[in-house]
Amino acid sequence: MSDTDTGTPPPAPFTRDDYAARMARAARTAAEAGLAGLVVMPGPDLAWLTGYLPTATTERLTLLVLDPDREPTLLVPALEQGDAAAAPGAGAVAIGGWKDGQDPYAAAAALLRPEGRYGISDSSWAQHLLGLQRALPGTAYAALSEALPMLRAVKDATELERLAAAGAAADAAYEDVLRVRFAGRRESEIAADLAALLLEHGHSQVDFTVVGSGPNGANPHHEAGERVIRDGDMVVLDFGGLKHGYGSDTTRTVHVGEPTAEERRVHDVVREAQQAGFEAVRPGVACQQVDRVARSVIDQAGYGEYFIHRTGHGIGVTTHEPPYLVEGEELPLVPGMCFSIEPGIYLPGRFGVRIEDIVVCTEDGGRRLNGTPHGMAVVA
Amino acid sequence: MSDTDTGTPPPAPFTRDDYAARMARAARTAAEAGLAGLVVMPGPDLAWLTGYLPTATTERLTLLVLDPDREPTLLVPALEQGDAAAAPGAGAVAIGGWKDGQDPYAAAAALLRPEGRYGISDSSWAQHLLGLQRALPGTAYAALSEALPMLRAVKDATELERLAAAGAAADAAYEDVLRVRFAGRRESEIAADLAALLLEHGHSQVDFTVVGSGPNGANPHHEAGERVIRDGDMVVLDFGGLKHGYGSDTTRTVHVGEPTAEERRVHDVVREAQQAGFEAVRPGVACQQVDRVARSVIDQAGYGEYFIHRTGHGIGVTTHEPPYLVEGEELPLVPGMCFSIEPGIYLPGRFGVRIEDIVVCTEDGGRRLNGTPHGMAVVA
Repeated sequence: MSDTDTGTPPPAPFTRDDYAARMARAARTAAEAGLAGLVVMPGPDLAWLTGYLPTATTERLTLLVLDPDREPTLLVPALEQGDAAAAPGAGAVAIGGWKDGQDPYAAAAALLRPEGRYGISDSSWAQHLLGLQRALPGTAYAALSEALPMLRAVKDATELERLAAAGAAADAAYEDVLRVRFAGRRESEIAADLAALLLEHGHSQVDFTVVGSGPNGANPHHEAGERVIRDGDMVVLDFGGLKHGYGSDTTRTVHVGEPTAEERRVHDVVREAQQAGFEAVRPGVACQQVDRVARSVIDQAGYGEYFIHRTGHGIGVTTHEPPYLVEGEELPLVPGMCFSIEPGIYLPGRFGVRIEDIVVCTEDGGRRLNGTPHGMAVVA
Repeated sequence: MSDTDTGTPPPAPFTRDDYAARMARAARTAAEAGLAGLVVMPGPDLAWLTGYLPTATTERLTLLVLDPDREPTLLVPALEQGDAAAAPGAGAVAIGGWKDGQDPYAAAAALLRPEGRYGISDSSWAQHLLGLQRALPGTAYAALSEALPMLRAVKDATELERLAAAGAAADAAYEDVLRVRFAGRRESEIAADLAALLLEHGHSQVDFTVVGSGPNGANPHHEAGERVIRDGDMVVLDFGGLKHGYGSDTTRTVHVGEPTAEERRVHDVVREAQQAGFEAVRPGVACQQVDRVARSVIDQAGYGEYFIHRTGHGIGVTTHEPPYLVEGEELPLVPGMCFSIEPGIYLPGRFGVRIEDIVVCTEDGGRRLNGTPHGMAVVA
């Protein structure tokens, strides 16, 4: 199957060996960090490590245990064993089942070291973590993104290829949406257009379609509502999802009709902040430094109090993951890290502006995976 | 807006007072169970208690604290404070924000009793539970569905009205799908038909559309794949989602063309088991008893080893919740409880049969929320 828009063949699927290598590296990295191993439940880490993602994440325990001295083992509800065995990485992991009515935590305990300290996937259910803590009171746990923030943070060539394809598809969706009618339509209609365009350009999943018009744009996490867009509105468009399993996330702020001088000035400040953040990217620079550089541009323009979120977040098999570009994050940038740079200014009750690109850290500095212009597009 | 199919007006939305009453009852129930209170993160419990559901569940902490002696408090990322304040139950809860770069667990710790034992929503992220455990090492936690299995288990009249509407819509979708062509089409196409029909009949969200044809039907959690359905196939159809915020979940097993005598026999056994389970429902009966009754019918017919899952699960604002009809669950049935009864027989490599209705426990016994016939429908 080829992408509907370009005819580009999809990247070759990851193989059993790819997953085996990821699991081996994860177990080794855990050991180097002083952990007994990793405990991974359904979510992006499990998908990245094994290619397996149950159709639903539920109260039934599914658990991958990685231990540097033992074979990787995946414990699943017995009635999902067939699905697990069909996963692309299944050949690299021993699969065991537990049946309804049995105690899954007792089964899990048999796979863990009673006094071990484990990294656990961030989004594991609290119910299951409590079950493990109860079954093995001597074990300890640390959230994977805190214990091993680098585990998925550095992308290899095949991952960067997918991220670039996702970025290009988001760009194509943006270019298409500039041609639709904005004035007189609801935010939710533009959001539906964006979602359809992402799918048309090869996304398998749409994660968010923010359409923040006028005062709604001043709420950075406003999604899209029933407000009818009017001539003279500033409109924040922030959208993304997954293509071939890797994320897109881009923001442009457009204007319906001609902007005012103030709107232009605010947009220019955000654009300059985004550019400054981008230029700060190079190996060895602390994550927080990119945030500081972008923030100082906005501070100096007098809008500091209106930039109310961090500058960026990593992206990969999820659309939010380490590294986080935030004050206090001293992790140094490393070639292959991939993250958003997305400063914004939010004027309560009036309008908001945000500009966001996905950027890869290379040996020579940043490389953008979004290429659409940063100038404020005027829409109809 | 009315449902597209019936013109029935949607039920009146839950009010601030409804949410206030739920929160008060939850805090009181927690105290009665010896808990200091409840800690609730994004998911069905938060939606049920406050009407608030962030657009995404992320690494940024969102936390509702219910304490019988204090005002309910919702801690959210500052940039989502506007969304939270717009939730239907927002008027009944104090809302506080924390900003990127601040420690959200320190902010959360200020809301908790340092030595308190709390019930925590099942699907809370492990990362956040670990953050709370680190910030307040003297606190203890128990999964909400285990500590307070009854919290959402007994549905009130307005909830039962919604569950009945969801069930009726699922029935209508089933009746419609019987008229589509099965033979020669892929499972995934029938699944798409089912999803479209659920939406057409007023569902806002489709959670699962299992189409298990021939040998795939013997895998209870098989969703729907690329297998082309053939004449002579048994096909398990298990589908559901949310309508007006409440769940549907029903299964019928159909046959393409005329079934064999063995297929009829297996189907009859499952049908009899489902009926026996249904007839076992009455107040005071232990959950496990319904499982035992249904299972004994299948055991006695000689298929016991092929009924490889529990008999049922509760349903409400989620499609899997307490009460669980499973061996070992001694919780007694109470009027207003709502759950699936869904025995099955799965013959590996050959075919599967499952029949599932949603059933409410009333003073007088069970009441089905699904009304389509249990006989094996023959499709084309």
